[in-house]
Amino acid sequence: MGYINIKKLAEELNLSPASVSRALNDSHEISKETKERVWELAKKLNYEPNPSASNLRSHKSKTIAVIIPQVANSFFSLAINGIEKIARQRDYHVLIYQTHDNSDMEIAFINRLLNGRVDGILISISSSTIDNTPFTELIKNIPIVFFDRMYDEIDAVNITTDDYESSYQATQHLIEAGCQRIAYLFALNNLITGKRRMAGYVNALKDNNILYDEQLIITHIENEDEDYANIKNLLTSEKPDGIISSIEEMALPCYSACKQLNINIPGDIKIISFSNLKTAQLLDPPLSTVTQPAAEIGQKAAEILFKMLDKKHFEPKETIVLRSTIIPRESTR
Amino acid sequence: MGYINIKKLAEELNLSPASVSRALNDSHEISKETKERVWELAKKLNYEPNPSASNLRSHKSKTIAVIIPQVANSFFSLAINGIEKIARQRDYHVLIYQTHDNSDMEIAFINRLLNGRVDGILISISSSTIDNTPFTELIKNIPIVFFDRMYDEIDAVNITTDDYESSYQATQHLIEAGCQRIAYLFALNNLITGKRRMAGYVNALKDNNILYDEQLIITHIENEDEDYANIKNLLTSEKPDGIISSIEEMALPCYSACKQLNINIPGDIKIISFSNLKTAQLLDPPLSTVTQPAAEIGQKAAEILFKMLDKKHFEPKETIVLRSTIIPRESTR
Repeated sequence: MGYINIKKLAEELNLSPASVSRALNDSHEISKETKERVWELAKKLNYEPNPSASNLRSHKSKTIAVIIPQVANSFFSLAINGIEKIARQRDYHVLIYQTHDNSDMEIAFINRLLNGRVDGILISISSSTIDNTPFTELIKNIPIVFFDRMYDEIDAVNITTDDYESSYQATQHLIEAGCQRIAYLFALNNLITGKRRMAGYVNALKDNNILYDEQLIITHIENEDEDYANIKNLLTSEKPDGIISSIEEMALPCYSACKQLNINIPGDIKIISFSNLKTAQLLDPPLSTVTQPAAEIGQKAAEILFKMLDKKHFEPKETIVLRSTIIPRESTR
Repeated sequence: MGYINIKKLAEELNLSPASVSRALNDSHEISKETKERVWELAKKLNYEPNPSASNLRSHKSKTIAVIIPQVANSFFSLAINGIEKIARQRDYHVLIYQTHDNSDMEIAFINRLLNGRVDGILISISSSTIDNTPFTELIKNIPIVFFDRMYDEIDAVNITTDDYESSYQATQHLIEAGCQRIAYLFALNNLITGKRRMAGYVNALKDNNILYDEQLIITHIENEDEDYANIKNLLTSEKPDGIISSIEEMALPCYSACKQLNINIPGDIKIISFSNLKTAQLLDPPLSTVTQPAAEIGQKAAEILFKMLDKKHFEPKETIVLRSTIIPRESTR
């Protein structure tokens, strides 16, 4: 038969060249039966894909973008490592963009990416993002996977963790350690992530017949000094015996405030925080944490993005949940 | 005279339109006297630059790239914040790229940037970079500023800190605290940054008549477990009474190893580290640090990059040195 190309395979199989090409790329648009017919014949006839043609057909930038609130956060820096691990295997470059939780910057940047500068996007949305319209459009135009911080209402691939359950367990952990007045440091309140963490706390209190007291809730403000003042005020006026911090950025000011006010951790107050901080075990005292599978979340998100780029099968509306772990240390003993 | 454009200014002044344009942009290619002649006439005739033309002439991507070893390092995350502060004022986006100290990745990525994807580059070079040829070429093709980690031999703009002096002072600080057997955790040994820090340590010992002992030098390896084993071995076999860590990644394993070996900090051993770690003051005990002006370095580097993009005057071979500060805490008391 001479040189075997897609056209010849198509003729033999009575299929269109486009279908043969999709079948060879393991596209989900082609039935399993057809794919097997194509693969069998390709093997039989020693079909070799033309590498330069396959390069032309594939994406050009060999770059993916990771859009996150900030890099100076242990969860995100570990997630990036997970993403880069997968990207390196594919010889892809990873560009990182920080939104600083500013949704205007987020959208402005995404619009610039749509001109082919990157082949795909991994995003953890800004906590100030309320309007999801730009994202419903975006999904139609470029392969995108959401990780950690996502929309509930958009049909997209999401990789996240069990925010409700882990917050419930952290609250339970403090109650078992003897706490009765448990304060909650509330962040990401616009996002489903934040809402689920809050709900876990509220329901654990309820299941243990502890009254919810809104005086014990401090909402995170994007201003370190104000956060610190609010925490100090909580400690002096409300005298909680336990604290759950829903982000690590609020756990550190708790430590500083307790030091300044001569409040002993864990003697006077027990503290647990959502955190992947490497120094958690070296703090004074070592901090109990809800540790998220950050690198695994990044890795999984990247794997699915590459399935999209390869036109392999993926579930377009799937939400994958990877479990967090409670690591008890001295701060809740 | 009707509408005043560059051509008309040029005619009046008996200059070429290109020279007038450069003068209006405060280019260093034009003499001060000529610029003043141009500015004076432009003011007198109420010359208004055509905004869309000025846009076309300027750079298109409105994006700069920051190339760094890694984001999970407090120095670099603060430096990025400094860079972004300046970029935001100019409505520029900042892309971050991690090399993980791999010079092949560094060069491969830089080559991709040369096609107009970004208007300029801020870079802190990888510690495995030995061959500087790609950079001598690069400087001719795209505006670039080096910060923190740079080449000594290349004529470029560098923003850095006083590595020699601050390492000398850190050593002096330990000697004044009573240390006589001071170990040095050596990193960035390929780079001028690392060499200067080492030299500061060596010379401070010499000036205090303390013999340099190579058994007290541990060289950083890109492998956490090996670093940890080497530090533990140093602590048990050499029994130093002081440690200077030239990077924060090695200070934390020192803390863990001391904990494990029941060595009291600062009672048995005093520790100081180059670090911008936010948690330094919350560690057990609080860690003394050589704190670099990270945000200021980033800011200064970005300011000069924008001068280049604006074709304003800058010193093409200037090295700007911003001072680091020794912050003594409990770990060296």
